[in-house]
Amino acid sequence: MGSESDEGGVILGVDGGTTSTVCVCLPLLPFAAVPQLPDPLPVLSRATAGCSNHNSVGENAARETLEQVIREALTRAGKNYSEVRAVCLGISGVNHPSDQDRIFNWMREIFPGHVKIHVQNDAVAALASGTMGKLHGCVLIAGTGCIAFGFTEDGREARAAGAGPVLGDWGSGYGIASRALTAVVKAHDGRGPPTMLTTSILQSLNLSSPDEIIGWTYADSSWARIAALVPLVVSCAEAGDQVADEILKNAVQELTLSVKAVVQRLYLAGEDGNASFPVVMVGGVLEANRRWDIGKEVFDSILKTYTGAYPIRPKFEPAIGAALFAWNSMMNDMEANRHR
Amino acid sequence: MGSESDEGGVILGVDGGTTSTVCVCLPLLPFAAVPQLPDPLPVLSRATAGCSNHNSVGENAARETLEQVIREALTRAGKNYSEVRAVCLGISGVNHPSDQDRIFNWMREIFPGHVKIHVQNDAVAALASGTMGKLHGCVLIAGTGCIAFGFTEDGREARAAGAGPVLGDWGSGYGIASRALTAVVKAHDGRGPPTMLTTSILQSLNLSSPDEIIGWTYADSSWARIAALVPLVVSCAEAGDQVADEILKNAVQELTLSVKAVVQRLYLAGEDGNASFPVVMVGGVLEANRRWDIGKEVFDSILKTYTGAYPIRPKFEPAIGAALFAWNSMMNDMEANRHR
Repeated sequence: MGSESDEGGVILGVDGGTTSTVCVCLPLLPFAAVPQLPDPLPVLSRATAGCSNHNSVGENAARETLEQVIREALTRAGKNYSEVRAVCLGISGVNHPSDQDRIFNWMREIFPGHVKIHVQNDAVAALASGTMGKLHGCVLIAGTGCIAFGFTEDGREARAAGAGPVLGDWGSGYGIASRALTAVVKAHDGRGPPTMLTTSILQSLNLSSPDEIIGWTYADSSWARIAALVPLVVSCAEAGDQVADEILKNAVQELTLSVKAVVQRLYLAGEDGNASFPVVMVGGVLEANRRWDIGKEVFDSILKTYTGAYPIRPKFEPAIGAALFAWNSMMNDMEANRHR
Repeated sequence: MGSESDEGGVILGVDGGTTSTVCVCLPLLPFAAVPQLPDPLPVLSRATAGCSNHNSVGENAARETLEQVIREALTRAGKNYSEVRAVCLGISGVNHPSDQDRIFNWMREIFPGHVKIHVQNDAVAALASGTMGKLHGCVLIAGTGCIAFGFTEDGREARAAGAGPVLGDWGSGYGIASRALTAVVKAHDGRGPPTMLTTSILQSLNLSSPDEIIGWTYADSSWARIAALVPLVVSCAEAGDQVADEILKNAVQELTLSVKAVVQRLYLAGEDGNASFPVVMVGGVLEANRRWDIGKEVFDSILKTYTGAYPIRPKFEPAIGAALFAWNSMMNDMEANRHR
């Protein structure tokens, strides 16, 4: 490895979500930093752009967004493309090797051949943000959507859920909120019990009757707009509403099931089920609520089956996680070379 | 009433669905035709056009489609606007008085003031197609979407479901098929049991792995494309697949619940719950399958609670139902005038 070029070398981490894309630029951290990273991390620059999920905005727009956010992060850090040593992109909607190949080729066109390029699902960035770049354990993301993603130290991986609103991601913010809207419609037309959700949601949406909810959902089908109702569901459950409480309990079950499916397929808990592994928990749905804490309920439920699981709530954003993953991969390669 | 103008007078019935719009032109049937309609009905013309659900295509396109299909039906029948005595439009997506008013005003601009104009949800046309134009009883429509709509002879009405895919119409073709797709994804990622649906659906969609289902649903979110998978679910259930069987049983429960909610709110079954009323059953999901007959299961389930319910499977299409509703309303007005 040309150590003379390490001076000024940088690493890029990209988090491409469904609502925005973030790119951070970090200096090449010294090998000695393992396992203790400098605190605070020396972030050289940070740039943001719109959605880069090709499923949502199409391939051309996704590519344009990624190129733009990378260009901007480098400009702000006063670095050029040849100074980049590695880049990791964690992109929402990357579900298939063909997705990875396509984005890899886009990056290969803007970065010189010596730059290490990693293209991963955004779940990888989220996991790495909790594990300081190491791919081991399970990450559960529950924001507008939800997904569980797991990795073993020997490179196997598995995922569960993350299939979008049509395919039953009921633990997601969208899933919780669409069930709450359904409960209001059902209470109104006689198919379900009355619920506090009716007043709460109608007031919040400035609607006068549950009938108008139908038009409201048709008017704009963006998932994030629906998922934004989750705090109302939590408030109603905290106020004792049975219907809201059931919806949250169901979400906890679904999220727990996703993590368990991943842990089981990867034997993350070992043969006896007691091995230690991290569960990195990310996203608005899992963040601490006052009393009805979805994240805590999910973790308690996981712990009943897997006693060695331990929760991590990341201190860093996923873009930093992506950069740390790229850095960690470089360190592993160097380590492997040293022992060769 | 100017009986001299009855000569050559016609009635229009419009069925505006989510996939197509149909307009039929019928001659003014003689009053004596009640209750025995001529068989076959003397349909003067029939015209078809695209979608006229304003939620799907927007107001301008919906209006244009309605005007076009009416113009064409009249041209084909060799009639002009002044010969129309009454028109009934049963339009999908009409869920609110403001929807009715808007479409009513569009029609008032093309028809002279003496023409009776009725604007209703498409469920009204479907009910009337089974009851020969009389608004009494409950209609259950389960095609791509689903809705239960009920009417009493004294003019009260109630609906249940029909809220679209976001709001839990699980008895609809879309609901059944999206649950089937979800079951395939869950079986694949370890959250659910194996199911025959996997092979059946992957073959039908020409996909090689359940992972690809995610991209397939994103590629085109039209509900009809997803609902088209219902026959596969029925086949798997008939072949003994437990997962498919559960999905259909759940759909039967949801559809039954919709009808019961309407019957209960309108007291269609009378004080003692034994009064006689028709349940008109319409749509692909309710049409007779070989062994797993969703329509029969729903009706049997209704009958357990309401012994006076009797099923009707309409002989006529909904556009004819709309025309018969308009005609029946005219007859009722004339009857009322005679007794004044």
